[in-house]
Amino acid sequence: MRAEIIAVGTELLMGQIVNTNAQYLAKGLADIGVGVYFQTVVGDNVSRIKESLHIAKGRADLIICTGGLGPTQDDLTKDVLGEVLGQKLVIHEPSMNTMTEMFQRRGIPMVESNARQALMLEQSDPLPNDTGLAVGVAVMHEGTHYILLPGPPKEMKPMFDRYAKPWIESKLDHVQPLYSIMLKFAGIGESALEHALIDLIEAQTDPTIAPYAKEGEVAIRLTTRASSPDEAMTRLRPLEAEIRGRLDEHIYAAEDITLEQQVLRMLAESGQKLAVAESCTGGLLSDLLTAVPGSSQSFLGGVICYSSTLKHKLLGVPMEMLEGPGAPGAVSEETAAELARNTLRLLEADVAVSITGVAGPGESEGKPVGLVYVGLAHRNGQAFAVKLQLSGNRETIKLRAAKSALYHLWKTIKS
Amino acid sequence: MRAEIIAVGTELLMGQIVNTNAQYLAKGLADIGVGVYFQTVVGDNVSRIKESLHIAKGRADLIICTGGLGPTQDDLTKDVLGEVLGQKLVIHEPSMNTMTEMFQRRGIPMVESNARQALMLEQSDPLPNDTGLAVGVAVMHEGTHYILLPGPPKEMKPMFDRYAKPWIESKLDHVQPLYSIMLKFAGIGESALEHALIDLIEAQTDPTIAPYAKEGEVAIRLTTRASSPDEAMTRLRPLEAEIRGRLDEHIYAAEDITLEQQVLRMLAESGQKLAVAESCTGGLLSDLLTAVPGSSQSFLGGVICYSSTLKHKLLGVPMEMLEGPGAPGAVSEETAAELARNTLRLLEADVAVSITGVAGPGESEGKPVGLVYVGLAHRNGQAFAVKLQLSGNRETIKLRAAKSALYHLWKTIKS
Repeated sequence: MRAEIIAVGTELLMGQIVNTNAQYLAKGLADIGVGVYFQTVVGDNVSRIKESLHIAKGRADLIICTGGLGPTQDDLTKDVLGEVLGQKLVIHEPSMNTMTEMFQRRGIPMVESNARQALMLEQSDPLPNDTGLAVGVAVMHEGTHYILLPGPPKEMKPMFDRYAKPWIESKLDHVQPLYSIMLKFAGIGESALEHALIDLIEAQTDPTIAPYAKEGEVAIRLTTRASSPDEAMTRLRPLEAEIRGRLDEHIYAAEDITLEQQVLRMLAESGQKLAVAESCTGGLLSDLLTAVPGSSQSFLGGVICYSSTLKHKLLGVPMEMLEGPGAPGAVSEETAAELARNTLRLLEADVAVSITGVAGPGESEGKPVGLVYVGLAHRNGQAFAVKLQLSGNRETIKLRAAKSALYHLWKTIKS
Repeated sequence: MRAEIIAVGTELLMGQIVNTNAQYLAKGLADIGVGVYFQTVVGDNVSRIKESLHIAKGRADLIICTGGLGPTQDDLTKDVLGEVLGQKLVIHEPSMNTMTEMFQRRGIPMVESNARQALMLEQSDPLPNDTGLAVGVAVMHEGTHYILLPGPPKEMKPMFDRYAKPWIESKLDHVQPLYSIMLKFAGIGESALEHALIDLIEAQTDPTIAPYAKEGEVAIRLTTRASSPDEAMTRLRPLEAEIRGRLDEHIYAAEDITLEQQVLRMLAESGQKLAVAESCTGGLLSDLLTAVPGSSQSFLGGVICYSSTLKHKLLGVPMEMLEGPGAPGAVSEETAAELARNTLRLLEADVAVSITGVAGPGESEGKPVGLVYVGLAHRNGQAFAVKLQLSGNRETIKLRAAKSALYHLWKTIKS
């Protein structure tokens, strides 16, 4: 099956927003073995949407449109597809009822144009919208499959994952479903990971091995097609075991969760409380931790000791350690360890992590940009500091420092 | 002039990276009055790139391709365009010399395929690459303008801004350059802003008024064409004055800087030191502030008082204010003000801001998700707290709370 993605929306065309939907769909289609050959962006304009559909029909078996399903006169996608396929638009009653009830519940009158959102093509299958009002459309016409999804990602993503993807899979002939295992890594870079697995990656046929990298974290997905989960696991598990044999110390999860989620989960399970002292990361580590719902169960908080004064006054680092000739300075192993120890004690935590370093753009204390120390202290008496030399701009160094701190934290609470 | 953007690259098509280049180009073209009518993404494939160029030629006067200018066999864009226009590829000597020198300087042998990056079409104008190796191409053929830019944004953006944009402008007939004023707003939402200016927005012809919104901040750009900056300002200034007359208390800058940049600049100019106490934002406010290079000049740091224990132990909020029957609780005007006052005193700051609230997903202390208090304390004795009711998910509430805190901080140090 050859797919084409058409994003409809003048705001995309003019660059007011980025077309992240296309990326999400292309990845999701790849997961079920459907290749995308073209992506198009077109404005809210009848003749140009028609032209795009016409071109796509000539070269794709599956056309997915996003956007233009809303209530306004600019939302034209269903009208245009109906016209192109020669199908009337009809009301999808369950969507209409949900919408009517919602307006009644909120006590606001339903403007007539809202009813447009409950429309579908007369021969189409409806795709329910669990997070919004506009119903989606899936229809097959003269050998081509058409899918219309809403534009807002928070509506598009669940509709695609829950309803459009299974609909597409049901149209794929004789293809077994995909099964995969996601392994998430910390404390190792993308190239080091690839280097360690290069023989497996180069020899891959089935299961496939796909590396993914985002700032500060890398992952690999092992994928195979099989008639049952059991059959899939007999192929996936040996490969996972082989990889674990080489890199187990870096694998923090076998599911798609972030390192901070994993750390918070382990802290909660063991009933330990965490506190932090952040200098060069300036609150980023705490922001990552508190982005996880329920983090307050294990995260006490901490100190953003951006200035030497705060390191000294709030966290009791001796001034002679921070300043003066011969002093280790704020960016040093000694200060990192002292910050962690004192944070543990003063904030009555079970484990404390500190970060101090030079995020740039300029050097500090004569120390180079990217030099960062992470300190760790545990109620069991363990305390140490790790030296890192990170690369990148200010933003990247902050992120890599925070992720490194999480990695050392994970290693500490795991052991 | 009608433009079309074609992004070439299998990694875009498969969703491994997002097509941010298209957004950048669409915005930049809008700035010089060129409308984009279609955007396409196509893989590294000769026949499909050819097909995309052919379709684009039929409906656009300006075709901008990004990607596929590198040294590998997958980099095909120049070859395909040369074939389509019937033009040979020739070496652009200055680019070749720069490349040869660079390899010599680094002491590494230059692989022959690298020479491909110095190729241009025989009748094309070269577009210099100040941040990479592949030279760009600008060429006019049978009434259509073609521009080839590199794929990596760090090469594409400077080449477009410095060389491609002026080349396009030189092809626009009798069109005067654009001048604009960007006004940045805080403490007001997009719809309230539009409501206040709706008569101006609806009546706009010249200058034009374009609103922009990103989470927590809104902006409007006033734009006109003129033969000189002076002539432009005689039209832009009266409109700016009209807008300031209505919304001056919300305009924090007449240039494209963030609210945190403006706050830090004002603190530095007045020699004031800032400290923070963050509860529900969990470090995000500090992260935003420390993302600005040089922030350490004015930002001392602060406390992430995520737990009641830390609010009490580190920042001296009385336990009877935080807990127990009849206590205001951690999320209250009293606690916000107390946090700000104590942070100011304990951290010896000139101004202190505190944030405490319910980020969700669940309620806290029986208080609803989105209820947030911002506290402000100044060395001059001023101290107060503001109540906010924010909407959105956990991430959005954290961001809106941090931006609201910055807004009240800005108002305080401005007065």
